Amino acid sequence: MSTETAMLREAAEAPEAVARQLARNQDLCREIGRRLRARPPRFVATCARGSSDNAATFAKYLIEIRLGAVVASLGPSIRSIYRSRPRLADALFLAVSQSGQSPDLLSLAEAAREDGALTIAIVNEPASPLAECCEMVLPLHAGPERSVAATKSWIASLAAMLQLVAAWSADAALADIVRRLPEDLARAAAADWGAGEALLAGAEDLYVIGRGPGFAAAQEAALKLKEIAGIHAESYSAAELMHGPLALAGPRFPALAFSQSDPALDGVVELLRRLAALRVPLAVAGPAAQAVAGLPGLLALPLAEDLHPFAAPVAAVQSFYPLVERVARARGRDPEKPPHLSKVTETL
Amino acid sequence: MSTETAMLREAAEAPEAVARQLARNQDLCREIGRRLRARPPRFVATCARGSSDNAATFAKYLIEIRLGAVVASLGPSIRSIYRSRPRLADALFLAVSQSGQSPDLLSLAEAAREDGALTIAIVNEPASPLAECCEMVLPLHAGPERSVAATKSWIASLAAMLQLVAAWSADAALADIVRRLPEDLARAAAADWGAGEALLAGAEDLYVIGRGPGFAAAQEAALKLKEIAGIHAESYSAAELMHGPLALAGPRFPALAFSQSDPALDGVVELLRRLAALRVPLAVAGPAAQAVAGLPGLLALPLAEDLHPFAAPVAAVQSFYPLVERVARARGRDPEKPPHLSKVTETL
Repeated sequence: MSTETAMLREAAEAPEAVARQLARNQDLCREIGRRLRARPPRFVATCARGSSDNAATFAKYLIEIRLGAVVASLGPSIRSIYRSRPRLADALFLAVSQSGQSPDLLSLAEAAREDGALTIAIVNEPASPLAECCEMVLPLHAGPERSVAATKSWIASLAAMLQLVAAWSADAALADIVRRLPEDLARAAAADWGAGEALLAGAEDLYVIGRGPGFAAAQEAALKLKEIAGIHAESYSAAELMHGPLALAGPRFPALAFSQSDPALDGVVELLRRLAALRVPLAVAGPAAQAVAGLPGLLALPLAEDLHPFAAPVAAVQSFYPLVERVARARGRDPEKPPHLSKVTETL
Repeated sequence: MSTETAMLREAAEAPEAVARQLARNQDLCREIGRRLRARPPRFVATCARGSSDNAATFAKYLIEIRLGAVVASLGPSIRSIYRSRPRLADALFLAVSQSGQSPDLLSLAEAAREDGALTIAIVNEPASPLAECCEMVLPLHAGPERSVAATKSWIASLAAMLQLVAAWSADAALADIVRRLPEDLARAAAADWGAGEALLAGAEDLYVIGRGPGFAAAQEAALKLKEIAGIHAESYSAAELMHGPLALAGPRFPALAFSQSDPALDGVVELLRRLAALRVPLAVAGPAAQAVAGLPGLLALPLAEDLHPFAAPVAAVQSFYPLVERVARARGRDPEKPPHLSKVTETL
């Protein structure tokens, strides 16, 4: 395997890709924002698979927290397998896909549009079937992505959602956060999370913890740890971990946690203290790391302190990608060749 | 530890509890069904934690498949932590909780009711705060549950959802399925899944697979395997497993699969063939087991062939509970004392 993988190269391109994307999509997002304010959707439905579905989780929290619209995650199978026609009139339907190729997403997007939903495709490939069948397209402008493990397109899809929510809420402060995002990402790309290698590379099982918008980062990190590093990493919200999954906690079951400066922080900190008392080795990014400094077994992963809670999860994943790539190689795996997988997965 | 645990005893009570519940709630469900047909909700929002949230997954598939209403899973933290007021006017809000005590569910249910949603509490404890703050209560009538690992109340919550959906859809065929459920459960309680012990007790990691309504069974089985058997079991829909998680598949990572006779069956069978080719040891319940009979490493777990696809997941979990209790004991764990857990979990 080469010393620099396509995954690492593409992850490093994310800050620039996001800068390009935000500039190119600015007018489009304003237009979408105007439409959504003029006729507020009754609710929002997202449709996505794999890492794109983790990105949809980010949209769910942003929209529910900032705009008060309820967001449902619709499984494509509802239409493609069960032939149901979910009622989506007056809803906003967000389809998220890097390739825009999945036929099952397509059939649900078509049904949503026929039913009168405002359908928006968030895709990296604007010439794709999914983009063609949706009323509006929010292109990621991330450029070609060759690595099986999506990186820059994932970061770009979160940036697209943040820009969309800022435009929809017409919130000038949030628009500033969006403008600062490429710089936040550039700093995060330069941050060194290499200290996490020892903890992660030796683990066979792992919980990845996040809450609120940070839960999307936890989902994405867990998927990548499975996909390229061969570690059985499972994501949990800090609250859900207390219901049952805590039974597995112990010295041989480390946890990686993402946190941001928002009202969910206290709950994450409380959980980390609980885990530390159970001698769980911890790697923690964000303000929770400062809050539990000095706990035994704690490794703090550097994340800028001035990040907005909606930017922190995106920046954290930017710093995480080189770490997971490194962990994969330390475990003797080629990050470019995750076992049994291909770039586009077509499912029934 | 005693030879018969409270968990085993309570799980065995489920068929009778469900018979009692269906009889007592019949008129109430008819009334709810009339209201929902007279004023169809724009969408549905569920709110639950832990195993109750797995039960809510069952409601999601039933409602989306049979009634075409989109179902969103709302995290209680949206209200309790983030102080957001999700717009729920004209929605159906279903809160699911065995104890009805969780303060975070309460604050979201109150907000939903104030906003004009029809709020229904599905609870085992009708004198609970959650039941009091919802407009309507669908009691589980499961009787006291002492085991930390909920069993009969979980089965009862699925039965309640099935009865609710049958009444809402005014579908006589589905009403028949509901009427047959106690008998289906009694047969399932008598089925012997003990052959699964060897495969599960030796596993440290496991995927639990289901699709559509069967995904709820997979989520519940994975949670119980973690909670009382100390196995890192993770649930996946058959489609999502193909995106990344397949990278972990191999001889040391068994899979337990639930299936039912519905259009999702082909996809489950396709995945099982794929897993068998990767030498993944398989334990399979439902018609997928017949479809892949003869595959190397396959263990078929008995499930009646005449089960309706909405009844099969409930029956499968009824048969699974004694198995997981047995697996826990085989691994030297007391099913009554899962590490670090208590019966009611209060989360911020």
